[in-house]
Amino acid sequence: MAKQKKAPRPKAETPKGFRDYFGAEVTGRAEMLRTIAGVYHRYGFDALESSAVETVEALGKFLPDVDRPNEGVFAWQEADEDGRGDWLALRYDLTAPLARVYAQHRNDLPTPYRRFAMGPVWRNEKPGPGRFRQFYQCDADTVGTASMAADAEVCAMLSDALEAVGIPRGDYVVRVNNRKVLNGVLEVMGVDQGETREAVLRTIDKFDKVGEHGVRELLGKGRLDASGAYIDGVGLSAEQVEPVIRFLTSKGADNIATLANLHAAVGDSAVGVEGVAELDQIAGYLGAQGYGPDRIVIDPSVVRGLGYYTGPVFEAELTFEITDEKGRPRQFGSVAGGGRYDDLVKRFTGQAVPATGISIGVDRLLAALHAKGRLDGVAQGPVVVTVMDRDRIADYQAMVAELRTAGIRAEVYLGNPKNFGNQLKYADKRNSPVAVIEGADEKERGVVQIKDLILGAKIAENATLEEWKERPSQFEVPRSDLIAKVREILEGQADA
Amino acid sequence: MAKQKKAPRPKAETPKGFRDYFGAEVTGRAEMLRTIAGVYHRYGFDALESSAVETVEALGKFLPDVDRPNEGVFAWQEADEDGRGDWLALRYDLTAPLARVYAQHRNDLPTPYRRFAMGPVWRNEKPGPGRFRQFYQCDADTVGTASMAADAEVCAMLSDALEAVGIPRGDYVVRVNNRKVLNGVLEVMGVDQGETREAVLRTIDKFDKVGEHGVRELLGKGRLDASGAYIDGVGLSAEQVEPVIRFLTSKGADNIATLANLHAAVGDSAVGVEGVAELDQIAGYLGAQGYGPDRIVIDPSVVRGLGYYTGPVFEAELTFEITDEKGRPRQFGSVAGGGRYDDLVKRFTGQAVPATGISIGVDRLLAALHAKGRLDGVAQGPVVVTVMDRDRIADYQAMVAELRTAGIRAEVYLGNPKNFGNQLKYADKRNSPVAVIEGADEKERGVVQIKDLILGAKIAENATLEEWKERPSQFEVPRSDLIAKVREILEGQADA
Repeated sequence: MAKQKKAPRPKAETPKGFRDYFGAEVTGRAEMLRTIAGVYHRYGFDALESSAVETVEALGKFLPDVDRPNEGVFAWQEADEDGRGDWLALRYDLTAPLARVYAQHRNDLPTPYRRFAMGPVWRNEKPGPGRFRQFYQCDADTVGTASMAADAEVCAMLSDALEAVGIPRGDYVVRVNNRKVLNGVLEVMGVDQGETREAVLRTIDKFDKVGEHGVRELLGKGRLDASGAYIDGVGLSAEQVEPVIRFLTSKGADNIATLANLHAAVGDSAVGVEGVAELDQIAGYLGAQGYGPDRIVIDPSVVRGLGYYTGPVFEAELTFEITDEKGRPRQFGSVAGGGRYDDLVKRFTGQAVPATGISIGVDRLLAALHAKGRLDGVAQGPVVVTVMDRDRIADYQAMVAELRTAGIRAEVYLGNPKNFGNQLKYADKRNSPVAVIEGADEKERGVVQIKDLILGAKIAENATLEEWKERPSQFEVPRSDLIAKVREILEGQADA
Repeated sequence: MAKQKKAPRPKAETPKGFRDYFGAEVTGRAEMLRTIAGVYHRYGFDALESSAVETVEALGKFLPDVDRPNEGVFAWQEADEDGRGDWLALRYDLTAPLARVYAQHRNDLPTPYRRFAMGPVWRNEKPGPGRFRQFYQCDADTVGTASMAADAEVCAMLSDALEAVGIPRGDYVVRVNNRKVLNGVLEVMGVDQGETREAVLRTIDKFDKVGEHGVRELLGKGRLDASGAYIDGVGLSAEQVEPVIRFLTSKGADNIATLANLHAAVGDSAVGVEGVAELDQIAGYLGAQGYGPDRIVIDPSVVRGLGYYTGPVFEAELTFEITDEKGRPRQFGSVAGGGRYDDLVKRFTGQAVPATGISIGVDRLLAALHAKGRLDGVAQGPVVVTVMDRDRIADYQAMVAELRTAGIRAEVYLGNPKNFGNQLKYADKRNSPVAVIEGADEKERGVVQIKDLILGAKIAENATLEEWKERPSQFEVPRSDLIAKVREILEGQADA
């Protein structure tokens, strides 16, 4: 009989575009989410955790950046009796599930319903460097009120949340724009519907990249792009283009000046006037609470999401510079966004329900804090009690139990204890602050050796046990002083 | 032209077997996970968050309760250029991803690697009452050491974790068994391989349900089950059956007696003797740290997972009675389990890597605490500042800003303020402890009305504003005393 060929071993890899998070990456994010949840909670928002899996029918085509239905999500078909069950998919954001939840439970929920949600979302997109197909979002939305007070509230809350996680005032700004103002401008331009309108919207979306001049060209005759390719323009006259340029560049010295500029830009368009009035109200509410333009500012150059939202649009940007992969300084940019979307629930119930909210990109915010050196990124390891005598593991376990009871993170070395150097290498790899040694000699004399590993880290790797013991960063204390001495060393390290 | 039929509205429903979690359900679970993470961390375990999505190849067939490959998971195929990419799936537990992570990153991880992980897992199973297809697990495992000290450690940690979340000593017990002891027993019985061995293992798994007598019948000639159907037996002689019955019922008055009974049951089987020695070591380590049989006990009647694990097996049971849906008292039962699985990583690397760990069923544990009334399940809502004059929302927002700055959860009512009764109904639905009223009259006199809603809850729904103001649970204080009075009421409610 021929020998059966063994099945090849499976590859130990995450799927493309996914990654694992270790230690401080996990606890740092959990801490940030907890801090943000604390702010949201204090504002009266209630937690919601919807299922990660939704029917494709319920998710709909909400994904803002994707035109094609069912593209961009991870989806599969349920196998029912006929093998043709519902199509299910992983949620791609936390807004589409909110719409479903609100439609499903609206009779049991308060009106307005303030809710926050945090958790991973999944996008079936081409992964790239630093671009993953699973990432965290952290949203807060108010459903069921058209009041601009709700919009002002989420902006204030976003500002508070950023400061709570460690972005100081001055290092961020929340910018506010309004889709209705843009609609008014389009009306004034005579392009408030049809294909031209869509083309204008798409062009405005490029304002961040191509600037005022670029938008002028793209709305007019066209433009040579960076690669030398000619991009056809929308074909508007220079005169027609003027109002939208005026809109995009209408930010003045303060909110009052900006609002006056916007008033001029929308002329007598009813929707435009309404949009300006909304911005005026938001600025008023925020000003009364002390949120000045150093924190939240009316800024019509914010165009991200203008096509998606129906009223006010918000974007939080970090204003400090970081150094990118190629060593060049650049602005860190956007870490949160949001806006008003007044027909969220309509596809389920037929009734328009006003809603407004914000979404914080937690992973980007963590990256920003790392870039600024405000998170050290390496969690302190446990105190390691070394094993000098493998018959006395129970004694060493009693030591760590004492340390833990005193609130000190601690563990017994559980690898092969034969080679003492390996125990030190292990402690090093764990980022341990302190190692404890109790050999037969120490046991007899009723003492323990306590080693400050932060002080001694550099030479530890190659030292013999005897050399290591002679280091000035090592202390011999009575066994009964174990906890006190370890605590003293840890406190000294924390102060350093 | 015929009228185009509108597409039907999507159903606002979770997929079958999924559900949403609201308010206190979410924060209660987050709090429990944080508490358990604190215990795990203090024991030196590091956090790991692997991706929710794995390749089916990497997941393998680890799912303990499912015999068929790829059954039981939610899986789909990636669309690559040829439309035939990798099969991906949602993780069904946190152990299979640990195997993949350890195999992938083993050169960068310490040995042994102690890690904890918490998060949702997904099972593509038939949903039932109280049985969901997404639920939380909370695992801790030590990879890379064969030492029984690691097994003792995770049992002690499990015990600590249960007490930390509010299960008092005496209300739970961690039972420890060992697969090797069973293997020894099977050797003694002469059924240590082949189909008979599998049949014996499957039968033992039913010990919880059918008891000693049932197992005797099922291993022998067969048995009439509760429905009257005859179940064929394995066909062993009464004499052959004896050792396994002796094993299952070998729990003695204390660990020493149990271990002596087990010694007798395994005779001179080498693997059996090894298994008994392992249990002896675990009991020794735990005893030295003060974890007596009131917390952790050797108990060979624990059979869950014996087919899955390769050495020690652990199960944490809550020992108090609860009342089930039909009003009958019953034991709450298992909330956590685990054991040693020494070939976890082998399918990736070819090398056997010893590992042991525990998994806490967080949702069951939460249900247990609810059943015992140890979680109140209703989160306190925010202080609601009512809107008596819609032109003064900015003033009301300033009030809530003051309250929040004082650490008090608060919000302005943002629904339609016209009907004051609706504002009170809203506060009621929110579980608000306090409502604040400042109408034109109060504003003029420089006072606010502060209403204790917990006291006044019962009559609030039907009262008019005037009736409501007359309640003794309502206080008029100077505007400047707002924070102090609200705090006083909240503290009084907390003491009540």
